[in-house]
Amino acid sequence: MRAPEDLLKVIEEGDKFVVASHMSPEADALGSVIALGMALRAMGKTVVIFNRDMVPNYCAFLPGAERVTGTLSAVNTEEFTLLLLDCNTPERAALEDVRFRDSAVIDHHMTETGFGDVKWVEPKAPATGLMVFRLLEQMGADITPDIATNLYAAIAVDTGTFRHLNTTAESLSVAAELAEAGAEPGPIASDIYESWSLRRFNLLCVTLGSLEIHGPVAVISVTLRMLKQTGTTLEDTEEFANLPCMIKDVKVSAFLKEVRKGYWRVSLRSKEKYNVASIAGGFGGGGHRNASGFSIKGEYPGARDTLLKALGKVL
Amino acid sequence: MRAPEDLLKVIEEGDKFVVASHMSPEADALGSVIALGMALRAMGKTVVIFNRDMVPNYCAFLPGAERVTGTLSAVNTEEFTLLLLDCNTPERAALEDVRFRDSAVIDHHMTETGFGDVKWVEPKAPATGLMVFRLLEQMGADITPDIATNLYAAIAVDTGTFRHLNTTAESLSVAAELAEAGAEPGPIASDIYESWSLRRFNLLCVTLGSLEIHGPVAVISVTLRMLKQTGTTLEDTEEFANLPCMIKDVKVSAFLKEVRKGYWRVSLRSKEKYNVASIAGGFGGGGHRNASGFSIKGEYPGARDTLLKALGKVL
Repeated sequence: MRAPEDLLKVIEEGDKFVVASHMSPEADALGSVIALGMALRAMGKTVVIFNRDMVPNYCAFLPGAERVTGTLSAVNTEEFTLLLLDCNTPERAALEDVRFRDSAVIDHHMTETGFGDVKWVEPKAPATGLMVFRLLEQMGADITPDIATNLYAAIAVDTGTFRHLNTTAESLSVAAELAEAGAEPGPIASDIYESWSLRRFNLLCVTLGSLEIHGPVAVISVTLRMLKQTGTTLEDTEEFANLPCMIKDVKVSAFLKEVRKGYWRVSLRSKEKYNVASIAGGFGGGGHRNASGFSIKGEYPGARDTLLKALGKVL
Repeated sequence: MRAPEDLLKVIEEGDKFVVASHMSPEADALGSVIALGMALRAMGKTVVIFNRDMVPNYCAFLPGAERVTGTLSAVNTEEFTLLLLDCNTPERAALEDVRFRDSAVIDHHMTETGFGDVKWVEPKAPATGLMVFRLLEQMGADITPDIATNLYAAIAVDTGTFRHLNTTAESLSVAAELAEAGAEPGPIASDIYESWSLRRFNLLCVTLGSLEIHGPVAVISVTLRMLKQTGTTLEDTEEFANLPCMIKDVKVSAFLKEVRKGYWRVSLRSKEKYNVASIAGGFGGGGHRNASGFSIKGEYPGARDTLLKALGKVL
């Protein structure tokens, strides 16, 4: 995997950069922008690291997280080059109304629009952090322990620490190089996986209690009542959708989250050969082959039955 | 990390090998013996792959698992060299009464005795599988996809797929080489982590319901009644002890398993700086700094309180 020459040129010739990523960021989005921002600063560039939603608690461990800003109001953006990471439309980053001097996209999601004067999109890359690592290599940037930690966390999160089907030999060898450069795999994994609040853990226990098995489909759900009872929010349900896949005979896991009364957000996860992207598409949602999402209306049993009927088509 | 010359000599000069590992094996013990056994066979040697307990269900995915035998009765062991892996005393492998021509030990646990004509022990290696990989490299063995899968699974299990504190840059770079050689990280992780029975998952839900938080200590327990209710055995509790460590404020997790009425087996897990080996030692058990185990007598609240009192000393 190599960054294209025109991207290297944009970086070499630019003086002022806004490095931005999508709203509701995870460690791939934030680790990637922080690492690239640090490298650009070390080259003497002026850099603003932007995320509309700033840094959620579960990413606060990333070194340099305090450098992420949620506003561009103090910046004359028309003098700046936008480097848009881990997404490829300005809307995903809440930047649709902001004018930049020029723009470049670095992303591993499928391109949605033609946005970007320069585009480097690698749908097969497991994480944007891996692309940033290759870019920094080509730029001749020094991989400091802080940069290494951000990029390692980015790759770790997007591959489920090398458990997901997107894990390639390259992701492991880059992770090894980052560990050599100072990233600490054990402590980073602890920051990612062992930082739950007790409330979130209690919500997990209650959620597991909702498990229903319908043939090869497992259904779990979180209701507004469960959130209230445990003092949690829907943000605390991150990763819950994957859990029923621990069960050998479960081929598809469906996680229903009650966003408001009679309105559910659904996350589907599937094992290797089952494609749930099309199911989500049928409900006006989207996603990947093994992970997709959409919304559905109705009271619980009805909404669940509609979903089970649709899932019957891929199983 | 390099295998010593005298070990290479034993392998080069021997014709007949018993490759064995410890009772109650996991994928590091079995993946290591199967991989080494395959490489020796490819060199034209006679090889018996031995484990007293054969292959538990959760290791049945290892290619070549069917070659593991639970008996040496058909073998004249006095003509064979014993290669003892992932442990370093014949007792751990149920081989204390068997006579071999000579013996070699390959292990990453602290040496307990002087056993072994040749010894290669690397307590800093995260997995015996990593040592076997280096050995095969030095032997010039061909790393087939089957060998790669066994060694990848071995390293993956013993590092918690690169999450535990024992994860080194070398474990990641070797994993990358094994993935290049044909090991598939995603499917192997699925075989390890997504093969639970529904009964085991139900036991997990019930066990999480037993959670008690006592300051920095989390206590979970499994009773004989819970096993009966879910149709499970204590074997199904593997990995449960780690779960409360997901909670940020939990420094030590204690898991009490009721072996028989009034008799508990305790597993302790701790975060980085907390040493629970000494606690286990005080109760006549043992283990490592961050994972140890022992037994305790008494009815539940009393046994738990004895334990909490002892834990007070390290927190």
